[in-house]
Amino acid sequence: MSTLQTLILFSFLLSASHAAVQDFCVADLSAPEGPAGYSCKKVSAVTVNDFVFSGLGVAGNTSNLIKAAVTTAFANQFPGLNGLGISLARLDLAPGGVIPLHTHPGGSEVLLVLQGSISAGFISSSANTGLLHFQLNAGKGPALAIVSFSSPSPGLQILDFALFANNFPSELVEATTFLDDAQVKKLKGVLGGTG
Amino acid sequence: MSTLQTLILFSFLLSASHAAVQDFCVADLSAPEGPAGYSCKKVSAVTVNDFVFSGLGVAGNTSNLIKAAVTTAFANQFPGLNGLGISLARLDLAPGGVIPLHTHPGGSEVLLVLQGSISAGFISSSANTGLLHFQLNAGKGPALAIVSFSSPSPGLQILDFALFANNFPSELVEATTFLDDAQVKKLKGVLGGTG
Amino acid sequence: MSTLQTLILFSFLLSASHAAVQDFCVADLSAPEGPAGYSCKKVSAVTVNDFVFSGLGVAGNTSNLIKAAVTTAFANQFPGLNGLGISLARLDLAPGGVIPLHTHPGGSEVLLVLQGSISAGFISSSANTGLLHFQLNAGKGPALAIVSFSSPSPGLQILDFALFANNFPSELVEATTFLDDAQVKKLKGVLGGTG
Amino acid sequence: MSTLQTLILFSFLLSASHAAVQDFCVADLSAPEGPAGYSCKKVSAVTVNDFVFSGLGVAGNTSNLIKAAVTTAFANQFPGLNGLGISLARLDLAPGGVIPLHTHPGGSEVLLVLQGSISAGFISSSANTGLLHFQLNAGKGPALAIVSFSSPSPGLQILDFALFANNFPSELVEATTFLDDAQVKKLKGVLGGTG
Amino acid sequence: MSTLQTLILFSFLLSASHAAVQDFCVADLSAPEGPAGYSCKKVSAVTVNDFVFSGLGVAGNTSNLIKAAVTTAFANQFPGLNGLGISLARLDLAPGGVIPLHTHPGGSEVLLVLQGSISAGFISSSANTGLLHFQLNAGKGPALAIVSFSSPSPGLQILDFALFANNFPSELVEATTFLDDAQVKKLKGVLGGTG
Amino acid sequence: MSTLQTLILFSFLLSASHAAVQDFCVADLSAPEGPAGYSCKKVSAVTVNDFVFSGLGVAGNTSNLIKAAVTTAFANQFPGLNGLGISLARLDLAPGGVIPLHTHPGGSEVLLVLQGSISAGFISSSANTGLLHFQLNAGKGPALAIVSFSSPSPGLQILDFALFANNFPSELVEATTFLDDAQVKKLKGVLGGTG
Repeated sequence: MSTLQTLILFSFLLSASHAAVQDFCVADLSAPEGPAGYSCKKVSAVTVNDFVFSGLGVAGNTSNLIKAAVTTAFANQFPGLNGLGISLARLDLAPGGVIPLHTHPGGSEVLLVLQGSISAGFISSSANTGLLHFQLNAGKGPALAIVSFSSPSPGLQILDFALFANNFPSELVEATTFLDDAQVKKLKGVLGGTG
Repeated sequence: MSTLQTLILFSFLLSASHAAVQDFCVADLSAPEGPAGYSCKKVSAVTVNDFVFSGLGVAGNTSNLIKAAVTTAFANQFPGLNGLGISLARLDLAPGGVIPLHTHPGGSEVLLVLQGSISAGFISSSANTGLLHFQLNAGKGPALAIVSFSSPSPGLQILDFALFANNFPSELVEATTFLDDAQVKKLKGVLGGTG
Repeated sequence: MSTLQTLILFSFLLSASHAAVQDFCVADLSAPEGPAGYSCKKVSAVTVNDFVFSGLGVAGNTSNLIKAAVTTAFANQFPGLNGLGISLARLDLAPGGVIPLHTHPGGSEVLLVLQGSISAGFISSSANTGLLHFQLNAGKGPALAIVSFSSPSPGLQILDFALFANNFPSELVEATTFLDDAQVKKLKGVLGGTG
Repeated sequence: MSTLQTLILFSFLLSASHAAVQDFCVADLSAPEGPAGYSCKKVSAVTVNDFVFSGLGVAGNTSNLIKAAVTTAFANQFPGLNGLGISLARLDLAPGGVIPLHTHPGGSEVLLVLQGSISAGFISSSANTGLLHFQLNAGKGPALAIVSFSSPSPGLQILDFALFANNFPSELVEATTFLDDAQVKKLKGVLGGTG
Repeated sequence: MSTLQTLILFSFLLSASHAAVQDFCVADLSAPEGPAGYSCKKVSAVTVNDFVFSGLGVAGNTSNLIKAAVTTAFANQFPGLNGLGISLARLDLAPGGVIPLHTHPGGSEVLLVLQGSISAGFISSSANTGLLHFQLNAGKGPALAIVSFSSPSPGLQILDFALFANNFPSELVEATTFLDDAQVKKLKGVLGGTG
Repeated sequence: MSTLQTLILFSFLLSASHAAVQDFCVADLSAPEGPAGYSCKKVSAVTVNDFVFSGLGVAGNTSNLIKAAVTTAFANQFPGLNGLGISLARLDLAPGGVIPLHTHPGGSEVLLVLQGSISAGFISSSANTGLLHFQLNAGKGPALAIVSFSSPSPGLQILDFALFANNFPSELVEATTFLDDAQVKKLKGVLGGTG
């Protein structure tokens, strides 16, 4: 693992050839955002560092409830991606780890397994069975994967966190999911939700 | 109610002014579909009926588990919408009715309450709490609403049906949602799921 | 009518799932606008009110030349729609009322009749006969309809107002429409145009 | 004029670099059309002729009511443009000629005057005065212009033809434009409309 | 030539009908740029001059190495084009002139020959032979052409300038093109490159 | 290497959540293609294999002139990507290997180094120095990288192959690149070009 981690040190942005109105538009995270993304840094302020991101070279901390970690290289972390219709994330799954059911509101996703064995799936909405998807470690050792998205800011909505890790009132959770009150309160307890 | 139902008889498609490459592209549901939608019927075969849809004038049957019904006017039902970036649906909620947590993979949504009182909400993913949304009847009588979408085929993924109404194995549901086995099997029993 | 008006009090924005780069981008109407729409309000400043609009619950004043009124819920009036590819408007038509021939430069449109009887049409440009459309009250009582658009700011261009209600010189109107001078001046008089 | 006409013989399509999914997609006008345009000819059947169009080198016939002619190089005439977001047209205006008020449902437009003097304008809808535009010969000799569009099939809707050159019933024209019956019938007579 | 040059004095922007969220968005070149283009000038500050551009009426200076000139009417020079998906450029080619192999990262291109004879071509990437294109004067006199683009800011990358007119190190040029060192240094000398 | 190769066996397509009009549109490579991509296979014919691609788990053959190989997972090879705005490729670079200067006409690109050390760069067109980019092995052992694209079919245009590996006439290559005749013929000899 250690060698591999070292190897994933850099993501170079190589081409902005599909951007309709400029070569690149490095996010100025301090300026107003618009529907198409962040404002662009002035070209004179852009440096090579805006196009390099080393965050995917560091394994995420999997000492948690899901035994897994998601490290994102979205426009927020990697400003060179702003406006480009692409981003990456790193998934680390310890043995028994799982990325719970989730959706990405703003983009498609392709998963590439780099290490270990990962079981993944999605549920088609055309069969009225959804697009929720998940990844779980199907092997005995750690697993590592890279996911690519078709948006610089695809978002991430983990079902359990949306339902049980905030102040969404239990009665509303129950009324809109048909889960039992005991089940809802148990998971709110585990995930820190209130209400 | 009866008067109102009668009034919602027709959806006339009035303008295709935003379509980039043609005035309209009425779906030929029997021809191959592409990433941008259905193939277009030949213009000579298009009739006024392709632009009128009366299905939203009929109340949905709310004698069911959720005491609610969703009647869609998507491109599949209303072929004149194909390629236009717009569609509608009718929500009927009996007292106590609820449209459970769901997402629409392909589009934004605006809800317009026509009758009764509806409590609705969504959960922002930027707070890592999601975009799942729901509608529930907040009044004592029936409620009626129209939802508009920014896609001719926005899809619909109801969380409970995705999890509990198909052959998605219980162990995978449990592993990816942290729900208890008893809870999963109880709802699979109610919603007809297997596995 | 009074009950119905009360019922159309709220438009809840439920989902921004199609937005490529963020969940929502509530318009900051005081900040610079860009080609994709208004700048986004800071997320910390967004409130539930940004996603609720009660303006469609109020009947428009139809005591005017066209005996009709258009009440818009575009991004300008309903900032939560900014960037979402969707908006609504309410049409009130008194007996004899008409929404004259018009176009929406930025979006497709679907009309939903809620009350009364409305005659509507559009003219295909493929037959070199245009996309102009209109709605007129085809019944004896008032009529009410909701129109949905595929843009948060679809615009509205009413032909008569464009030709006869501004300072577009009469000679140019005549040269480019072949209307008679007397006809142009008569309608300019009615609609307040000059020149 | 004659030299100039000869010079505008060819439009070479040079680059399809913005097409998301292929270099080019030459229209197969005999295959089904979709919302994004015509089906593509097989690459093996594509020839250099698909990328050359000589139709803009021929002056249009201006011996008509409007003393003007529009010659289009849209995807229908110039199949290499299919899917590319661009097209051209040639405007010939004899002395006194005019392209009457019109819109293009599917695209923006830039006008380039090659010969003579052309007066042109558009009316902003934000001032509720429209996007209708026109071109008229402002000089004493013939005028020639090229217009470029942001769509391969921008469409063309000439107001007079939409109102007066088809079977759109006179009563509806009058009700939706407030034009006098005599005016409508006079122009229907000139332009060949019925009803 | 002189007459023709005088005739190409103005490019009137006639219609913004495809813009999704506003009629026009004249570039405010001093405000922050975003992924979709420049911020819009306030409507109250927009004047007719924002929609007229006379730069294409002036022949470019062809007294240079390539005996050719490209004069652009992109959003930078012609702010009314901002957000509209269209722009123009003028090509002047003296006898023997050539626009060397180049690409436009942000848009498709159509070439219209106005004077003289131009040989042009592109190389399909599907045949693994590229989309690079070029224009060269195939006649004995000067040639003049207008190119239209599907972006307001299509960019321009001339191969020779990218390789030989900057500080891109010669060793890297050679390693990535297989050109001989002598060839690279010769062209760097001609085009002013260093390194 | 061998372990790593085994690990990159599968690319699971997990989500089509950004597709406007359907969950997925698996390419039917035998049906007509359109501007937005391939026609969709019938949903009833879609299998899990359409969403799994093992081709990236096999190292490319680097025993060639450039000591490098590009293995693509584009819609052509991985039909589940059709219409999704995303694709992948694997780069293998032996010591001294180089992916020569190239562009992708249809998409942006992000590079992720998995093994070894890779030197990469691009040249901004805004500095009139281009978007051409390259990757070369900057270490002593083999290098491995994954590139992600913002299009299901981004294309690939390698400069040397475009200029020297086909029947593009040497005189035109020379006239449009200013390369010496000897240089052009030498590289045509190496790369198999004629003319």
